[in-house]
Amino acid sequence: MSKSFDDLLAKVSSISKKKLAVAVAQDKAVLEAVKAAHERNIADTILVGDADEIKAIGAELGMDMNDYEIIDEKDKIAASLKAVSLVHEGKADMYMKGLLDTKSFLKSVLDKEVGLRTGQPLSHVCVAEIKPVDRLLILTDVAFMPYPTTEEKKYIIKYAAEVAKACGVEMPKVAVCCAVETVNPKMPVTVEAAELSKMQDDGEITGCIVEGPLSLDIAIDKYSAEEKGAMDRKVAGDADILLFPDIQAGNLVYKTVVHLTDMKCGCILTGTQAPVILTSRSDTCETKVNSIALAAVVAEEMKKNK
Amino acid sequence: MSKSFDDLLAKVSSISKKKLAVAVAQDKAVLEAVKAAHERNIADTILVGDADEIKAIGAELGMDMNDYEIIDEKDKIAASLKAVSLVHEGKADMYMKGLLDTKSFLKSVLDKEVGLRTGQPLSHVCVAEIKPVDRLLILTDVAFMPYPTTEEKKYIIKYAAEVAKACGVEMPKVAVCCAVETVNPKMPVTVEAAELSKMQDDGEITGCIVEGPLSLDIAIDKYSAEEKGAMDRKVAGDADILLFPDIQAGNLVYKTVVHLTDMKCGCILTGTQAPVILTSRSDTCETKVNSIALAAVVAEEMKKNK
Repeated sequence: MSKSFDDLLAKVSSISKKKLAVAVAQDKAVLEAVKAAHERNIADTILVGDADEIKAIGAELGMDMNDYEIIDEKDKIAASLKAVSLVHEGKADMYMKGLLDTKSFLKSVLDKEVGLRTGQPLSHVCVAEIKPVDRLLILTDVAFMPYPTTEEKKYIIKYAAEVAKACGVEMPKVAVCCAVETVNPKMPVTVEAAELSKMQDDGEITGCIVEGPLSLDIAIDKYSAEEKGAMDRKVAGDADILLFPDIQAGNLVYKTVVHLTDMKCGCILTGTQAPVILTSRSDTCETKVNSIALAAVVAEEMKKNK
Repeated sequence: MSKSFDDLLAKVSSISKKKLAVAVAQDKAVLEAVKAAHERNIADTILVGDADEIKAIGAELGMDMNDYEIIDEKDKIAASLKAVSLVHEGKADMYMKGLLDTKSFLKSVLDKEVGLRTGQPLSHVCVAEIKPVDRLLILTDVAFMPYPTTEEKKYIIKYAAEVAKACGVEMPKVAVCCAVETVNPKMPVTVEAAELSKMQDDGEITGCIVEGPLSLDIAIDKYSAEEKGAMDRKVAGDADILLFPDIQAGNLVYKTVVHLTDMKCGCILTGTQAPVILTSRSDTCETKVNSIALAAVVAEEMKKNK
């Protein structure tokens, strides 16, 4: 695994430069990230939206608009469909939300004609660099699927493993996280965790190592794993991917990490034909740039596997 | 609220000294904490268990055994019943687990003759000092009740509010934490969170302010609350108590805080006639001492209300 976002950014500069399409690009925070991504040689961008507004904000931010392709489309829905179609047609490699609501943006992602649907469920993958941990950690799903079924969790694991691979881990370790590390029929998620672990043993889940149920300390901390006699588990203190039981647990841990630890992160939406960047208003510019970089390495990996 | 454990320890020294009864006290880690609590004037202790073993470990730790009352009882179950009965009879103020399994320990807590049962559900209250937060935060329930019902959550809130009061907050603010801050019928916990908030408005929950559903950022971070236009909520960036939807979310957040942040904590079991300390093998000595100090201020508060 890339050990940090610095590693990941270095990786980006070693692959062919990727192109980003932004839907409804007249958004200052998004253009700031687009500018940083250009300056740091992470990605070029096609800006779809209200050209006058885009140029005005660009001027404000000191952007040289000759560095960007602009497609003028004042209607937001039309702009999103135009932007997503660029990715659909292979003219761009990744798709990012600008100044439109999430619902409309997702509609464009899932559009049957020009969208990026694969027929598989979508899920959110967050890659985090958290100070005391010596590697990048993937948290999933902390933002998209509310109560994933076991079948959906198989997809969540598959996508997270693909992202980990794009970040440089050939055989990522997945911890199916629960409150406890033993199966307890009174906690159905622990039973499901053991099932997912067995599915990997049986070859039904491939490309990663899956172990659960695991408490978070055993998943990420070798010392705790030793203390609790858990070193014989397939994942013990060295998880690359933390799979959460549901969005409540996932999102609350994610927000804890964002607000109470020294961390960097980047996030993408997966299960689509190309990586999708669905940043939130509260994300910092750095998080947005990290998300673009993450999308770029994932786009490269998807191209390899085509 | 005491802003830190230093404040809390200062508070302990201002109240009458409390007495701790330890069940099956021949446990090095527990005796280490008992010694520290004695030296720091937090509590005196009655050690119930195998007297020879207790003395041997005490000698190893450099304890002056004249400072402790020892009751010799080699049988573990009998020792736990003896220790809990001391609290039941008012000869001690708080009850702590030593070298016996949690199940047997809880049996003594709930013993009909000599135990501490109140007929109300038990729940776990964790008081945490986490670096970027300028006050103590209570996390509950992160370790005991697996899937509390709405009725049980009312008790969890009541107990946490009592602990907050013992720590010096007259009217604690409770954030009913969820993945999102809006009611969404597809996420039943958000509906329940709004119900709990309304129960407080209607006077069915008293002694605290309850608001939910709240995402964790809005609950603890004023800046996020402002950003998201949530400053009109009853709790906005200034929560004292974080109520979790279930043990999965609670425990995963708790372990995240323990392993990935700069924090101190102390925990007790509530819903009993006196505070119970159920520390885990992985707790540090400091956590055990903090738990004893927390139990002492809570015991003082319970005495006041008798």
